[in-house]
Amino acid sequence: MAAMTKAPPVLARVYRGSHVESVHRGCLAVVDEKGRLLEGCGDPDLPVYARSAAKPFQAMPLLLAGGEKQFDLGDAEIALMCASHGGEPRHVQLARRILRRGGFRPDDLRCGAHSPMHEASARELVRRGEKPTALHNNCSGKHAGLLLACRALGLSHADYTDPGHALQRRIRALVARYADIPESWITVAVDGCNLPVFRLPLSALARAYARLVAGRLPGEEPCAAAVRARIVRALTKQPDLVAGTGRFTTDFIQAGRGRWIGKEGAEGVYAVGLRAAARGGKAIGIAFKIEDGSARPRDAVTLAALDRLGALPLGARRALASYAQPPVQNALGLEVGRIEAEVPIARRGRRGAASRGARQAKR
Amino acid sequence: MAAMTKAPPVLARVYRGSHVESVHRGCLAVVDEKGRLLEGCGDPDLPVYARSAAKPFQAMPLLLAGGEKQFDLGDAEIALMCASHGGEPRHVQLARRILRRGGFRPDDLRCGAHSPMHEASARELVRRGEKPTALHNNCSGKHAGLLLACRALGLSHADYTDPGHALQRRIRALVARYADIPESWITVAVDGCNLPVFRLPLSALARAYARLVAGRLPGEEPCAAAVRARIVRALTKQPDLVAGTGRFTTDFIQAGRGRWIGKEGAEGVYAVGLRAAARGGKAIGIAFKIEDGSARPRDAVTLAALDRLGALPLGARRALASYAQPPVQNALGLEVGRIEAEVPIARRGRRGAASRGARQAKR
Repeated sequence: MAAMTKAPPVLARVYRGSHVESVHRGCLAVVDEKGRLLEGCGDPDLPVYARSAAKPFQAMPLLLAGGEKQFDLGDAEIALMCASHGGEPRHVQLARRILRRGGFRPDDLRCGAHSPMHEASARELVRRGEKPTALHNNCSGKHAGLLLACRALGLSHADYTDPGHALQRRIRALVARYADIPESWITVAVDGCNLPVFRLPLSALARAYARLVAGRLPGEEPCAAAVRARIVRALTKQPDLVAGTGRFTTDFIQAGRGRWIGKEGAEGVYAVGLRAAARGGKAIGIAFKIEDGSARPRDAVTLAALDRLGALPLGARRALASYAQPPVQNALGLEVGRIEAEVPIARRGRRGAASRGARQAKR
Repeated sequence: MAAMTKAPPVLARVYRGSHVESVHRGCLAVVDEKGRLLEGCGDPDLPVYARSAAKPFQAMPLLLAGGEKQFDLGDAEIALMCASHGGEPRHVQLARRILRRGGFRPDDLRCGAHSPMHEASARELVRRGEKPTALHNNCSGKHAGLLLACRALGLSHADYTDPGHALQRRIRALVARYADIPESWITVAVDGCNLPVFRLPLSALARAYARLVAGRLPGEEPCAAAVRARIVRALTKQPDLVAGTGRFTTDFIQAGRGRWIGKEGAEGVYAVGLRAAARGGKAIGIAFKIEDGSARPRDAVTLAALDRLGALPLGARRALASYAQPPVQNALGLEVGRIEAEVPIARRGRRGAASRGARQAKR
């Protein structure tokens, strides 16, 4: 792995006319469910804050505690708990309903308020003279789920965002478990929504996503494997609740037709879990971090990575074409440039091992 | 200069808790009015699109054609022509007044519309159910000035944004003249507001700013020198019209009390012209480009550069303290991190040559 720390970085070039105007650099790790680093760009072991890419793991304690049955949770509720949603009316209403299932009110949320990420919804609030509430926060589903988890586990909920709270310690242990690293490797800071945020090597985040979408893992309890499968199913069944209208993650999961999940984190983080292509195959996790924290190259980089890995079927490629090389438009709507992503990893055949040529070139 | 192309880059580190979460890299050039490169970070000769940092030069043809007298222009009008304004009501009204001076209407603007950069003004528009117009475009003052220039010069105005229009060719020649480079070094693409945008070496942009704020230049016509001085005076007298409420450029120029001007360009460009500190001293230009195009580190990098150059008096340092190491806040308003800029150039004494120690270290 050490040899890879000097691998060429991911580059996303922003063209204006025929010249590059700006460049985003990134690190990327591709890991299989066994934990093997298959590919790395830049430093694949760079410590990164997972930000919202941790959400599927933050939803686990509730389901492990039997919350699905206790609170009658379906795909929609579970998807919203893993979401960075747009604050669209259906997201806000669902967050409110989740809270009610546990007897909570919006005031119990400790995520703070921000304008809906979905612009039309933000404008509609302003037009009506209303202020955004914690329900509009893109993390309100996650927070609502954590409150239910407190209820299910018999824990106090007033301090549920505290890093020392039993629920937070449980989440940290789950992140470590699926990332397959010692808990002590994870450092904690404060996230945008006030929860503990986990800092771990990029390759460990990729590994956590590979294991999230894998079949049963060695030594794993059947109920834990079932909870993972439940979360993955919810994300693939309700992609609209994971992000929202016109959002890459929603369209990306939709286009995957169950083959993959993807989740953004703030500051240029993205993680993908590719389910095993065939019986007996291995699940793969991809995680990358844009060094400068920008979300701008995210969509193009994600698709370029899947393309190099031979994991982007023609239908998905077509459905996501507008994300693969996004145009730069000016105030008149004219296309004045474009974004091109370069992910310098070996080109693989259709979702298999690297072609022989690419493998040899790498050695 | 070649030796400097491998100089360490500008770095702006975005901390979350005690760890770096994201990093912005940049190139920077410090040039005096004689054209000497005093300092460079990264590649000081990197070709960059000047974007809105070209605005003071785009205002020149109107004033060179006697437009100040013809259209009764004061500091306010000239400042707005060089502005990336916030689309606040006073900006919009002034842009409309400038147009009227030449018998133009808002429909004559070819800049396109976007929501006011000033958030409260944008919200107010939405609240009233109104759509943003070309007057709200941050470039409307520049475009209004170009229309007046067409009038003053007897040129057609319908096609004033065309790169081949006589006014645009004149502007390009002026950029080349003050950057002190052949016109052929400048390549052109389309800006966000539909005007030609100029691509030139970063050091040439810095040189243009040094020469913009310098006393009379060798071989320069007195009227040209007077136009430069007129533009610089307008910017320093009306900083609120150059950007707007709560904007760095406005507060930065204000805090300089006539010592400097500063102007942002899109995609992480910034340029500063430092007037000669004393009679017989030399004006200095600083230009930098954040590689990834982000504006986030701009303020901290600008102030760090001035600080290293010994050009930041105590009063200005105090007035601008909130920009020097901006906090990262979360949705609850808690400070969860900070931005720290590192500009690796020799530390100089109070606005003079490098101290002997720093000079020797550089060699």
